[in-house]
Amino acid sequence: MSEKIAVIGGTGDLGFGLALRWAWAGKQILIGSRDEKKAQEAAQRLKEKLESGASVAGLENREACVEASVVVLAVPFTAQAGILKSIKDSVKHAILVDATVPLAATVGGRATRILGVPQGSAAQQARELAPASTPVLAAFHNVSAEALQDLSVVLDCDILVCGDDSQAKQTLLELIKLIPGLRPIDAGPLEMARVVESMTALLISLNQRYRVHHSGIRITGLPI
Amino acid sequence: MSEKIAVIGGTGDLGFGLALRWAWAGKQILIGSRDEKKAQEAAQRLKEKLESGASVAGLENREACVEASVVVLAVPFTAQAGILKSIKDSVKHAILVDATVPLAATVGGRATRILGVPQGSAAQQARELAPASTPVLAAFHNVSAEALQDLSVVLDCDILVCGDDSQAKQTLLELIKLIPGLRPIDAGPLEMARVVESMTALLISLNQRYRVHHSGIRITGLPI
Repeated sequence: MSEKIAVIGGTGDLGFGLALRWAWAGKQILIGSRDEKKAQEAAQRLKEKLESGASVAGLENREACVEASVVVLAVPFTAQAGILKSIKDSVKHAILVDATVPLAATVGGRATRILGVPQGSAAQQARELAPASTPVLAAFHNVSAEALQDLSVVLDCDILVCGDDSQAKQTLLELIKLIPGLRPIDAGPLEMARVVESMTALLISLNQRYRVHHSGIRITGLPI
Repeated sequence: MSEKIAVIGGTGDLGFGLALRWAWAGKQILIGSRDEKKAQEAAQRLKEKLESGASVAGLENREACVEASVVVLAVPFTAQAGILKSIKDSVKHAILVDATVPLAATVGGRATRILGVPQGSAAQQARELAPASTPVLAAFHNVSAEALQDLSVVLDCDILVCGDDSQAKQTLLELIKLIPGLRPIDAGPLEMARVVESMTALLISLNQRYRVHHSGIRITGLPI
């Protein structure tokens, strides 16, 4: 299995930020977009941001997924189901990492409110739509997309990882450790994504209230 | 208006812990219970824990509320509505601080799951049941009750305060600052309590998973 990471929605803020940080750490990155040209442009933009050479390519979503062992889904909630259906056959041999937050803002409401998702969370909706054989994890909801994209910012945030597949989770925890300033935390089963997704609304609210851009979460009292 | 803090449910872990820490900081505390005798026993237990003299008394819930300028409600979710109805007429001149978490455990489910509350959160249910003139805040959901009760533990947790009354919120933020190791954060309107309450289920899950007792939350990236 390839060691490549595909980032679907890699042209958006969160996806591009994750792609950038992992490329900086030396990982091979595939930026996926519905539009291959946009994916290639983002890959070019990423290369220009890194002084040393980066291994990054831009591909149409399905092609990016086929080549990757880990697929990160970083798309707006309103696009999540449609994209998942389109890539379903291409993620059969990958770990799927959902970063979707069902913010009310995606349907014209406030970014400080969360939509109710029938399955319990966006991640559980992803679980329902993904092939049964594909491990589905949830992560990266609470890290600032802006901070990820600015390499001069020292990250200071825990990444709460939810999922029901221990081995897949371990793989992702190790990948997160490659990004300085991020600490991966095993936050339990996939259903806990409901809480972790909603914490994004809290952080957006704190960003507005305290006029900052990079608020994040740290868990205290853990032996790690 | 008196400077006394009443802690309803002050015989329980969270309530007793808050009462102890505030008494240690020199505040006058009224421990409330449905059973006056139990309240008096808890007050006695608190005094014995502090080497220096503490100003603490045990009273029946309503009597405790009448004398206090701030009333903290630290009771199980299943008891919240009944107690609120019983103290309603006694909190007309106080700030009501709800610390209730609607854990599924209170109805026989898991402590890592949250019940749906029709009003959106336990705090919003408190808002509905309290007198309209009484400011209602939500706080103290995410601090370890065990850590609060053990004065040898250095606390390390942010207290997210939700509410729609700025002046009342400011009063509570200052009271929280009296407890070393706790940092008060204005987490926005009362409706944000939905998120903050649910974070308790995450912390309970992390306590189980990492075999610790005192996990807590810190918000990073704030200018305070």
